[in-house]
Amino acid sequence: MNQFTSVHDVQDIGKLLRDALALKENPYAHKSLGENKTLGLVFLNPSLRTRLSTQKAALNLGMSVMVMNMDKEGWALETQDGVVMNGTTVEHIREAAAVMGQYCDILGLRSFPKLADREEDYSEDFFNKFIAYSKVPVVSLESATRHPLQSLADLVTIKETWQGAGKPKVVLAWAPHIKALPQAVPNSFAEWMCKAQELDMLDFTIAQPEGYELSEDFSKGAAISYDLDAALSGADYIYVKNWSSYKDYGKVLPYPEGWMLTNEKLTVTNDARVMHCLPVRRDLELSAEVLDGPSSLVIHEAGNRLWAAQAVLKQMLEKL
Amino acid sequence: MNQFTSVHDVQDIGKLLRDALALKENPYAHKSLGENKTLGLVFLNPSLRTRLSTQKAALNLGMSVMVMNMDKEGWALETQDGVVMNGTTVEHIREAAAVMGQYCDILGLRSFPKLADREEDYSEDFFNKFIAYSKVPVVSLESATRHPLQSLADLVTIKETWQGAGKPKVVLAWAPHIKALPQAVPNSFAEWMCKAQELDMLDFTIAQPEGYELSEDFSKGAAISYDLDAALSGADYIYVKNWSSYKDYGKVLPYPEGWMLTNEKLTVTNDARVMHCLPVRRDLELSAEVLDGPSSLVIHEAGNRLWAAQAVLKQMLEKL
Amino acid sequence: MNQFTSVHDVQDIGKLLRDALALKENPYAHKSLGENKTLGLVFLNPSLRTRLSTQKAALNLGMSVMVMNMDKEGWALETQDGVVMNGTTVEHIREAAAVMGQYCDILGLRSFPKLADREEDYSEDFFNKFIAYSKVPVVSLESATRHPLQSLADLVTIKETWQGAGKPKVVLAWAPHIKALPQAVPNSFAEWMCKAQELDMLDFTIAQPEGYELSEDFSKGAAISYDLDAALSGADYIYVKNWSSYKDYGKVLPYPEGWMLTNEKLTVTNDARVMHCLPVRRDLELSAEVLDGPSSLVIHEAGNRLWAAQAVLKQMLEKL
Repeated sequence: MNQFTSVHDVQDIGKLLRDALALKENPYAHKSLGENKTLGLVFLNPSLRTRLSTQKAALNLGMSVMVMNMDKEGWALETQDGVVMNGTTVEHIREAAAVMGQYCDILGLRSFPKLADREEDYSEDFFNKFIAYSKVPVVSLESATRHPLQSLADLVTIKETWQGAGKPKVVLAWAPHIKALPQAVPNSFAEWMCKAQELDMLDFTIAQPEGYELSEDFSKGAAISYDLDAALSGADYIYVKNWSSYKDYGKVLPYPEGWMLTNEKLTVTNDARVMHCLPVRRDLELSAEVLDGPSSLVIHEAGNRLWAAQAVLKQMLEKL
Repeated sequence: MNQFTSVHDVQDIGKLLRDALALKENPYAHKSLGENKTLGLVFLNPSLRTRLSTQKAALNLGMSVMVMNMDKEGWALETQDGVVMNGTTVEHIREAAAVMGQYCDILGLRSFPKLADREEDYSEDFFNKFIAYSKVPVVSLESATRHPLQSLADLVTIKETWQGAGKPKVVLAWAPHIKALPQAVPNSFAEWMCKAQELDMLDFTIAQPEGYELSEDFSKGAAISYDLDAALSGADYIYVKNWSSYKDYGKVLPYPEGWMLTNEKLTVTNDARVMHCLPVRRDLELSAEVLDGPSSLVIHEAGNRLWAAQAVLKQMLEKL
Repeated sequence: MNQFTSVHDVQDIGKLLRDALALKENPYAHKSLGENKTLGLVFLNPSLRTRLSTQKAALNLGMSVMVMNMDKEGWALETQDGVVMNGTTVEHIREAAAVMGQYCDILGLRSFPKLADREEDYSEDFFNKFIAYSKVPVVSLESATRHPLQSLADLVTIKETWQGAGKPKVVLAWAPHIKALPQAVPNSFAEWMCKAQELDMLDFTIAQPEGYELSEDFSKGAAISYDLDAALSGADYIYVKNWSSYKDYGKVLPYPEGWMLTNEKLTVTNDARVMHCLPVRRDLELSAEVLDGPSSLVIHEAGNRLWAAQAVLKQMLEKL
């Protein structure tokens, strides 16, 4: 694997899932693979799970890790070409990325969208430039439009826990929030689930209020519902997540009552397991009773972030 | 050892002291003990000695270390149960602690008190929840009411340096400051010294102005004095420290002149050695002449933070 | 090597250059040298290249690294002696440096000048105190007046890439900027190039507008020019860098047009290679066409920061 920015970078999803679950059984089996190899983790935004799970994944593979909080420890980055840099930005992404590529064998990058200009965010200009100029393999730690390490961990969790006959019904369910959040996690989850549906692993439905439809570039193939209760009917997994509008870009639109998942809502499901990428706002996005109850998979799912990251890094190291 | 939050977590203080001094002689003797084990250090407040000494202690034991500045790199934490999270906090301690426990074998946590509500601070609610939800051994890097790694290093220092006949007289001496500081260090020192006094290792006195009495939960067993000169008479060790009032909680109360330790004050002692946990404000808490003079143990004592932390981590690793 | 703060700390420059280039060929040849040795990197200012290259250099030598962002993670430091610390500073450099020396075998320190008081900055008081009190070998990660790891990497780059007959002509060329920058990089480059000129390795010229002359303590021996085109004539290496005035200390003085390096300016050179320490402001200090063109050595030069740092750390470790 030369880069890991979306599901499209994965040649064999089955192999990646098997690798992740095998690493969970034997975390240190490949510890010589990363000897004298360095992972640089570059953060332009806060991170807890991604930072720690990716760092631990690299350590399990014998790599060294250098963490760079670009926004706090480094220099303000310019991303546009052709500008005279006489403003507040101190270093151009061309130099910054190229230099980090000189010291690291693999780079990880987290950069959230600004949610102001849809075209700019969805161009993934910053991420693409970082990859192009760094000249080393890059793993996304969440970009403007995707969070593939999260989605891989989500799919690992479903594969690992599903014990029913046939294919599970997976529902991505929009949830309320007070802030405008990126579409990165739901976009990414949608494209991974659509891919898994193509591979006959599951059935996938997205439920959201009017105006919150994701871009079809990510949701194509999913069943779309505007009725949460109908979507939840017979569900085996519910992936709860808020996102801001893609159509009316970055906005928090009015929405009807009844979009927070509660125990009562779960009654129509097939004893569904409840997932969330975390951090989660209790009793706003998801009721505390569900989070603390037997249906919740959120901590187990967060634990699988480690094995997802380790599987990706392993496959990258094997190609170095 | 399953957790290290106070002297009450230690079954055999003599063994812990011997371990610390043995590790000082042979720092790398147990380097295989921490192989493939990860220590997560979670900071909600600044740290110099604790951060570096604990990190180095873990490295000496062969562990990997991941440092998380929760206040700067992560998400604002909610600690109260039953609240709708529609405010400024982004993640609940229930999830955050549980997730960190997924990636780390041992966690360290630093969280200062707010000094606004005594009952809240002294409940150690945040710390207790962190331990309960993380489900891994937790070592305190200083909590609202205690700093046990500091106190252990202090006792190690006394044991290591005492060469007199009989038991040394140890005095905890309140000192002036311009800010309201927590009682964590003096509370913790007091309960460790009271325990050592029970074990017949030393005699312990606390000297402070009226209104600055510590909680009896920590000071029970100590001789209490309101006269610094009387307390210092015949002292072998003086532990200088400021703290805010426990009774008039978190307040800086007026105090009489003469509470800063100077060379002149030392004349009534038994050539006492002077200790302080650092950071220290020169010529406010403690005179520069004492700090730079032959009585000062402060750097030696800070150096012993390493062996205290390493002894604790060693005993935790042995129980994993 | 007991400290590395300037070219004067280096006994044998030829040996240091050879070590750097040998390490570039065999990065892990001395991995046992740093076993159980810890490097502490202390930052009072932002850093990208220095942080990552020095960290990686230490890892290549088998050392452990602890990074301390003193301004963000630690305590505000007092540097003056004889002051009553009743203000905003929390810890004195005497204690802070001594304590860090307890936990680390080698320390690195970055501390920029304030550019307010020339005498204070050029006394290197903070740096000298840090070294004196830490009592361990200290490597400068850039001080108020010098950046020797950068200058060593620059000389490595010239030695490595020069393939002409005889000695190359090296020109340090002042460039425009909108902010007042320290003289540390040009001071340091100048004293290293003057030393190399003494050793008959190259010819060295400094070109700057009136008022921007560096201190003769650093530039003595260099040819001085106020005419950029004349200085560039026949140049083999051009080192582009802005700095604020030394004479009118810390000020941005008016300067004539024509001090930004462009492809047109390069026509009078001997196909000169262009260097810059980075970060660089495009089309302000240096034209984008030069930076992105075949003359630019800036990324290669940044890559050599690793081998410069590793050579210095190697020689320090050999003396421990």
